[in-house]
Amino acid sequence: MKRNRFLGDLLAHLFDRPNQMRGKQDDRSIVDLCEALLSAEGEVSGYRLAATVLERYNALDDDGKRAFFEYLNDELEIDAAHVAELAHQYAKDPSVEHFSALSQASEPRRQELLRRLNQPTGATPTLVSMRVDLLRFLKDQPALRRTDLDFVHLLRSWFNRGFLVLKQISWDTPARILDKIVAYEAVHQINDWDDLRRRLYPPDRRCFAFFHPAMPDEPLIFVEVALTKGVPGSVDKLLSEGRTPIDAEQANVAVFYSISNCQKGLRNISFGNLLIKQVVAELALEAPTLETFVTLSPIPGLNAWLKQQVEDDEIGHAATAMLGGEATDDGCKALAARYLLLAKRADGSPVDPVARFHLGNGAEVYGLHAQADSSENGQAQSSGVMVNYLYDLSQTELQHEGFVLNNIVAASPSVTALSNALLTTIPKGINT
Amino acid sequence: MKRNRFLGDLLAHLFDRPNQMRGKQDDRSIVDLCEALLSAEGEVSGYRLAATVLERYNALDDDGKRAFFEYLNDELEIDAAHVAELAHQYAKDPSVEHFSALSQASEPRRQELLRRLNQPTGATPTLVSMRVDLLRFLKDQPALRRTDLDFVHLLRSWFNRGFLVLKQISWDTPARILDKIVAYEAVHQINDWDDLRRRLYPPDRRCFAFFHPAMPDEPLIFVEVALTKGVPGSVDKLLSEGRTPIDAEQANVAVFYSISNCQKGLRNISFGNLLIKQVVAELALEAPTLETFVTLSPIPGLNAWLKQQVEDDEIGHAATAMLGGEATDDGCKALAARYLLLAKRADGSPVDPVARFHLGNGAEVYGLHAQADSSENGQAQSSGVMVNYLYDLSQTELQHEGFVLNNIVAASPSVTALSNALLTTIPKGINT
Amino acid sequence: MKRNRFLGDLLAHLFDRPNQMRGKQDDRSIVDLCEALLSAEGEVSGYRLAATVLERYNALDDDGKRAFFEYLNDELEIDAAHVAELAHQYAKDPSVEHFSALSQASEPRRQELLRRLNQPTGATPTLVSMRVDLLRFLKDQPALRRTDLDFVHLLRSWFNRGFLVLKQISWDTPARILDKIVAYEAVHQINDWDDLRRRLYPPDRRCFAFFHPAMPDEPLIFVEVALTKGVPGSVDKLLSEGRTPIDAEQANVAVFYSISNCQKGLRNISFGNLLIKQVVAELALEAPTLETFVTLSPIPGLNAWLKQQVEDDEIGHAATAMLGGEATDDGCKALAARYLLLAKRADGSPVDPVARFHLGNGAEVYGLHAQADSSENGQAQSSGVMVNYLYDLSQTELQHEGFVLNNIVAASPSVTALSNALLTTIPKGINT
Amino acid sequence: MKRNRFLGDLLAHLFDRPNQMRGKQDDRSIVDLCEALLSAEGEVSGYRLAATVLERYNALDDDGKRAFFEYLNDELEIDAAHVAELAHQYAKDPSVEHFSALSQASEPRRQELLRRLNQPTGATPTLVSMRVDLLRFLKDQPALRRTDLDFVHLLRSWFNRGFLVLKQISWDTPARILDKIVAYEAVHQINDWDDLRRRLYPPDRRCFAFFHPAMPDEPLIFVEVALTKGVPGSVDKLLSEGRTPIDAEQANVAVFYSISNCQKGLRNISFGNLLIKQVVAELALEAPTLETFVTLSPIPGLNAWLKQQVEDDEIGHAATAMLGGEATDDGCKALAARYLLLAKRADGSPVDPVARFHLGNGAEVYGLHAQADSSENGQAQSSGVMVNYLYDLSQTELQHEGFVLNNIVAASPSVTALSNALLTTIPKGINT
Repeated sequence: MKRNRFLGDLLAHLFDRPNQMRGKQDDRSIVDLCEALLSAEGEVSGYRLAATVLERYNALDDDGKRAFFEYLNDELEIDAAHVAELAHQYAKDPSVEHFSALSQASEPRRQELLRRLNQPTGATPTLVSMRVDLLRFLKDQPALRRTDLDFVHLLRSWFNRGFLVLKQISWDTPARILDKIVAYEAVHQINDWDDLRRRLYPPDRRCFAFFHPAMPDEPLIFVEVALTKGVPGSVDKLLSEGRTPIDAEQANVAVFYSISNCQKGLRNISFGNLLIKQVVAELALEAPTLETFVTLSPIPGLNAWLKQQVEDDEIGHAATAMLGGEATDDGCKALAARYLLLAKRADGSPVDPVARFHLGNGAEVYGLHAQADSSENGQAQSSGVMVNYLYDLSQTELQHEGFVLNNIVAASPSVTALSNALLTTIPKGINT
Repeated sequence: MKRNRFLGDLLAHLFDRPNQMRGKQDDRSIVDLCEALLSAEGEVSGYRLAATVLERYNALDDDGKRAFFEYLNDELEIDAAHVAELAHQYAKDPSVEHFSALSQASEPRRQELLRRLNQPTGATPTLVSMRVDLLRFLKDQPALRRTDLDFVHLLRSWFNRGFLVLKQISWDTPARILDKIVAYEAVHQINDWDDLRRRLYPPDRRCFAFFHPAMPDEPLIFVEVALTKGVPGSVDKLLSEGRTPIDAEQANVAVFYSISNCQKGLRNISFGNLLIKQVVAELALEAPTLETFVTLSPIPGLNAWLKQQVEDDEIGHAATAMLGGEATDDGCKALAARYLLLAKRADGSPVDPVARFHLGNGAEVYGLHAQADSSENGQAQSSGVMVNYLYDLSQTELQHEGFVLNNIVAASPSVTALSNALLTTIPKGINT
Repeated sequence: MKRNRFLGDLLAHLFDRPNQMRGKQDDRSIVDLCEALLSAEGEVSGYRLAATVLERYNALDDDGKRAFFEYLNDELEIDAAHVAELAHQYAKDPSVEHFSALSQASEPRRQELLRRLNQPTGATPTLVSMRVDLLRFLKDQPALRRTDLDFVHLLRSWFNRGFLVLKQISWDTPARILDKIVAYEAVHQINDWDDLRRRLYPPDRRCFAFFHPAMPDEPLIFVEVALTKGVPGSVDKLLSEGRTPIDAEQANVAVFYSISNCQKGLRNISFGNLLIKQVVAELALEAPTLETFVTLSPIPGLNAWLKQQVEDDEIGHAATAMLGGEATDDGCKALAARYLLLAKRADGSPVDPVARFHLGNGAEVYGLHAQADSSENGQAQSSGVMVNYLYDLSQTELQHEGFVLNNIVAASPSVTALSNALLTTIPKGINT
Repeated sequence: MKRNRFLGDLLAHLFDRPNQMRGKQDDRSIVDLCEALLSAEGEVSGYRLAATVLERYNALDDDGKRAFFEYLNDELEIDAAHVAELAHQYAKDPSVEHFSALSQASEPRRQELLRRLNQPTGATPTLVSMRVDLLRFLKDQPALRRTDLDFVHLLRSWFNRGFLVLKQISWDTPARILDKIVAYEAVHQINDWDDLRRRLYPPDRRCFAFFHPAMPDEPLIFVEVALTKGVPGSVDKLLSEGRTPIDAEQANVAVFYSISNCQKGLRNISFGNLLIKQVVAELALEAPTLETFVTLSPIPGLNAWLKQQVEDDEIGHAATAMLGGEATDDGCKALAARYLLLAKRADGSPVDPVARFHLGNGAEVYGLHAQADSSENGQAQSSGVMVNYLYDLSQTELQHEGFVLNNIVAASPSVTALSNALLTTIPKGINT
């Protein structure tokens, strides 16, 4: 890996001998260099040209980068009238030649440019970080979304599941990668090296990440797992300093307590569903005593939703009590169950984004826990209530289908009972 | 690598629990499975569906495969009239939405199908071998070329230079890979294990190959190199059993004496130019005493061309003499020089395909050798004459440009002299 | 590994700057260099001195090597009178100082020399090959056995089980190692690359070897294993070209059909017992369907023993018949059983060396097969009869104890029956 | 590595089936188990017996461990009278048999026990930690030194230079190893992860360690190196947080600023000399611009010596001034030079232990720096003065020889001048 990176540099160095060729440096503008890369010159000198363009891009300030993306968006755009004409021709005479002409004309030249830029070793991460810039500019230049669509199209193809590699992250992982894990953890912050050790070193902890071969130092997404006896009801306990680890063979439950996307530049290219399922398979293989695979997940939208319910006839009082920190644990769980099972968006899908992700993967709402997350964030978003989603690989397809086609939220009997029990556990009489 | 492959199988196994879902097996037709993969179902169960489709495909006979490709070609085709309409709309109102609609409509759905098929570990080599089948069918079903254009489009993107890995092939390489080297060597056949050892084990031999991370057992292209004192004039000597190896530090020339493409399924996706240049860089780094980088190449079209020249006023007699095995070494070399430098196709490029490849890379015709290849094939195609192409990385861009733009064939002074010297060295008088 | 070897060379090169120190080269004699290495000079310049001695040794002819060993044997010998004196002193006053003095005096200085020689990278294999020379000279210089005892003492300590590494040999093993497997196979010759592939590539074949970290390219001992349904009765079938492999999960028996020591220089340092048992453990882990672990072994001493029995009253006729190729299969097996169970040396242990090895490991004589080895060697030594020894790890300790303490040969009921059945199956009447 | 350790466990598990053999567990005492291991039983069941003994040992309290060592020391002792007798016999008749008998008798059986204990994977580190216990007990049981001599004898043989592996420690090293580096750093404490990153990550920092293959997770000794422009005069600057790294190619000096032994159990088995020289070689290879290789070392005995000099006629006043923090930088350096060059022990070697180490390796006293170490320890031991020792591999042998044979302290002209200049630079008159 290392070696090749180094070779890549050398190659750029050897190829990049513009002094023998065009004077001291290739002093053409970045746009001219892109045009050269797209021309016949790009076919034999593509490596050098691409390396130069990427180097040039990295040195640009934001104005320069905006100008570059405007060039991609406007100059490397399709000619719609020409496409229309070729489409008519092909409709009349569906020959291979007409098809080929239409295919070529209807793909913006910026896609070919991006492919040709992806030649030097190390180009892929640069293109991913290029998209980070682009996403930033999209906010006030929405027309650049055309270019972003092409980025997504290409990145989806390149970061296809078949090219990803699952790797275990452990105490045997190089510090270089662990630095990234610390930086990218998005759910439960890793405070220092000792905190990281508590998540990777003990025999009842696991962590897995997807990598892409062209970005060997950069995890794409990772999940942290705890092996436990019984389904745990609190992330505080999972992460506590003083706890005594158990042996993996003693565990019967695997808990996915944190899942973090690492690459902003790969937004909308989703890896989570497959990562969870592959890790379930990996763990089932490694530790045959595991019977249950659940998450321990936050409920980010709960309190916001409760605030909208305070006037509600049925649960208004309960919602007010919970927001005021005066609800019983059962009351909190009942409200959370109701939220997860019944609070829907206009399109019929759950209001809660984490619920949408796991239910969309075919998981079911499995258990609820009060006082499970004492962090500031946990208190603010859900008054400390957390939820387990269950991954039973024999059910995920069926449940996914029900969810996608008919908005059916799969839930365990106990959670369903909780969502119904509300009126009994917090009887109206008491509230009046 | 191993481990992941195994995991892949396990995953397929775990996910593939149709008994809990749809009866014993997923007994839908391959076409129905493809449609499912392209539908919402494919988003969550894509891994399993893709694995099933690929398994099904592998079990098809040729009739089944033809039917499958016809489905891709005809059913997953664009709707040209619809494309035309969307192009008109976009031309009128260039909104992001119109662009997005047009982009989607103008890409045949088979491209998305191929991307979704590429999810299970091991899918990429299967898709490459799928194209081997397709190329076979193209001969009598030329309309399938539409589908082939989409295969090429995707494979070019996936086998982009940035994703390839250069590896040295040596006596420390696993037997599994060496088996492939033996099988794929296309220029100078490897007869047995001892022959292979002669090409990999001695300190003055090297071999390099490009690999793709998703096909770790399959070289894509490889080049065999000899380190020598001086430019060698005969491949027979290079490969002789009895020769005494030299130390790498004693060598001043690196000779690329064989370059072989390995994957029929990647036809038209070219790696040769970059492989040679990267190996030049690698060797320059490893062995600083190397000064000259040349090929020792066959001249496949020479004798065929000579046969067309026997009636020629100027060189007819010389050509007849050479074909009859009665020419001097200098006479043979002069005719070969003339062929390489002057024999052109209608488009102005050289008749000789190997010459087109190396000159297109920016190399120059550097030296000629008679009695250099005593093999049957070498005698038949060029009466044993071979040629060195020189790779001087400080000149390749310039020479490439001259070749591509103006059909200029770069040649060393000695070869140029040879091509001119013909009439004097073999005077007409002698031949009558 | 590679890198370090290279560094080793560099180090030797850097350290070996005798021009700045003692003139062009360190031209002291090998004996003087050894004395320097044993002196204070050896403490700081040991690496260079050791490298020089080993280089010098390798350049010696046989006379030089003999002289070198005589120097070790005679000059670096203990002073027995001095040892006796120090032993008396220590007996009188068992102080640490007296102990230390005695310890040092009673170890020949050649042991310290060998330890100090073992400093440069690559020294260990050179010392092992030094012993190959020594063993050669022992034949006509038996007094050198003193030096050999010290070699064995050190090598046993260095090649301690705790330092060995078990590695699987497979089709993913580098050609460099496979070359050694072909060269060292001592039981059933490997004829060519295809023969080797038949033993390593199919899913029902395994091979394992012990390596020492200081000799990474050199297997010490290896065993070839076939996974089969049922206990096989013929090595011919196991190695046949045409056979159809089975999947590992279908097998219930692991057959150790060849075990080869690789290093002559490690004679008398035994690895076989532990290799077999560790491979049993490894296979039990990998393929849980395996129930039975047996060898398929030659019976090297059978025919030689039969020749001594031709005059025997009881079995003379049967022995003659078998030697003449006229015995029935059952007759052959009965004689082999009798030989393995009853033919003993003066010390009470079996005559057959392979039997001694496996019974000493705690295995039992499990099954016999006629017409099991059609090779020339197999016919000559045992008329094609082969034997299975069973490794049942729950019995090996007990059986080993019985064998070592009381010369009890563990045997299955069927083999015991065979050894007794002789008189009935080949009734005397027939023989008269 | 991992795999083999696991196999080791499995093996122990499989072999350790005492229920089939001797009842539930092998409940013999640790001494009986040792005797069994030394007997014939140990030859076939050594792996299991050794694993059991080591497990048993680890569970002992200090009394139990003392008893174990007393058993080694007294029961597995040589029979001195018998040795004397055999020595007489051998003196009379120097036959191989007599030699062999004497050899065996004069080696305490505990050596063979330790060798046989070293069979299970993971045994070597346990034996090393066994010696840590032993060293602890030596203080009040000096007679155990006999056993310690045998430990040292064996460990020296096993940790022979030829078996060690040099590895670079970098930001690509697993966290498991880095944890050890933090724990073992003995010279300049590593405070936290950021501190460690400052020593490993920047392009002008290096770290190298020796490892033994049987203890893959445990560095034996490591050295930290800074690549600098010019010889640095202060460790504070080297380790400062804010400094700007340089590229390796810009450096011309390599500074060894910290060298730490890691294994208490390997006391008296010295690796430092070879580590430094091999790292010099490694760096010279990697970064050809490096011209000078120096340490930046503490002077641990300086202030203690100064305290003894306060009454000295010549330097008493200067010593008092320096101890009082009132000396000039030049004054401090002059006193340090005098100390390093002239302060000798009874045997003629320098008083300073760090000086003895580097001069014994053949280095020279190269430069002195005042105010170079502001740490509490640095102030206390040497008032912040530090020293460079120069490693010039072309001189080390010669200088080592001079040092060992004639107590000559090699020093640069400037340091020699400093040691002489004292009386002039700090004239007595000024101090009164």
